Amino acid sequence: MSFIGRINETSQKKESRVVAGLDLKVCDYKELVGKVVNILDLIQDEICAIKVNFHLLLPLSFFELKSITDRAHNYGLQVIADIKLNDISSTNLVATNILWNLGFDALIANPFVGFEEGLGPCIIDAHSKGKGLILLTYMSHKGAVEGYGLDVLQSGRVLKMYDLFVQRALEWKADGVVVGATNPQIISHVKQKVRSIPIFSPGLIAQGGDPKEVVKAGADYLIIARGIVESDDPRTAARRLKSITW
Amino acid sequence: MSFIGRINETSQKKESRVVAGLDLKVCDYKELVGKVVNILDLIQDEICAIKVNFHLLLPLSFFELKSITDRAHNYGLQVIADIKLNDISSTNLVATNILWNLGFDALIANPFVGFEEGLGPCIIDAHSKGKGLILLTYMSHKGAVEGYGLDVLQSGRVLKMYDLFVQRALEWKADGVVVGATNPQIISHVKQKVRSIPIFSPGLIAQGGDPKEVVKAGADYLIIARGIVESDDPRTAARRLKSITW
Repeated sequence: MSFIGRINETSQKKESRVVAGLDLKVCDYKELVGKVVNILDLIQDEICAIKVNFHLLLPLSFFELKSITDRAHNYGLQVIADIKLNDISSTNLVATNILWNLGFDALIANPFVGFEEGLGPCIIDAHSKGKGLILLTYMSHKGAVEGYGLDVLQSGRVLKMYDLFVQRALEWKADGVVVGATNPQIISHVKQKVRSIPIFSPGLIAQGGDPKEVVKAGADYLIIARGIVESDDPRTAARRLKSITW
Repeated sequence: MSFIGRINETSQKKESRVVAGLDLKVCDYKELVGKVVNILDLIQDEICAIKVNFHLLLPLSFFELKSITDRAHNYGLQVIADIKLNDISSTNLVATNILWNLGFDALIANPFVGFEEGLGPCIIDAHSKGKGLILLTYMSHKGAVEGYGLDVLQSGRVLKMYDLFVQRALEWKADGVVVGATNPQIISHVKQKVRSIPIFSPGLIAQGGDPKEVVKAGADYLIIARGIVESDDPRTAARRLKSITW
């Protein structure tokens, strides 16, 4: 089954479209896996996927990371690597090979790097292995306008960078697009164009995005990191968000 | 001393402007540190810096990575993390904090993500710690034209994305710019604009860039990975490149 099929199936089973970003800030890296596992055990029934960022990818070893993806899979969850990949294909393929061996189901990449000798070979390889690539389309921070919001001249007409990225998501057969929760009007705009490609929306709570508004605008999956992992009660925080998505 | 000062001083001592990318492809991650150390020991006198990419950053633990940066520093080398950072500032700062704790001297980032709540806070933080940010300006692969080569409309005039990125490198006080060796004419063009910001050029040999031509075009540092680490004789390969840069 494809990543899109798997995450949809999991969300049906868990009755949740919440993706928990396990962005723990820990000074003692020896404590990190234990703290991640604690939170994962608490929230596993309220979410459909976990998202792992540099907070864990940089300090943890292959075997420590594998123990986290294995545990998530035992809970029936999907696992996304948020690496915002944007290198040349020979490097991208080494990175994706490591991530797929680690058990990740999908990763987030930046379509800015292009298809040829960029993300193209990775998408083809990922799909042959049932893995997914989720493409950044408009991010959640203020500076997103400095890149994703640029006006681009193409074939004599002006278009927004994020519209170019939606075109790429469709042409490249992406398994998801990321649109920040801080711009629900862009979520609505993208929703009308991406057909069956699901929209993943980060930037909720800590960054100011409103979960209800974002779901109404058309986001399929809500990515929440600090709003869960920095909460005094992660399970209740995750459960509250789950109820908004289902 | 700043990163620009340190890498210049090292290159004077070593009489080399070669940055070796330690992009080893190893299936058994337990063997990886040993193989990296072997190559580092062989080439340390022919280079001024090492560059570490996802090949090592993903599978190795904090302590394994630290053993590599420590060894490089003992040889007087600078250490660059090639992470092509392009996330929101709260995540970027977690990643850079880990990288600086690991002993890295500089990292490569993508200015596409913007300054505000993007790279801005990281640059200010990095400079306060004597660390450097090197900004992508034009990459070495064919697909670079799909992003770095776009025509952007700004304040009523059309400019190339890479010219916008050169503007950012100057305004943001970047510690280097990356321009691919496969486009020496863009290196020459960028060289005329970046003033004292050094140009780092990847894409040599394996990707087809010619070291002599790239130095002539104005590159300050040559980044070579596969041309060294996949060579039967890494020391001779590094020495040959060193002689072109000095």
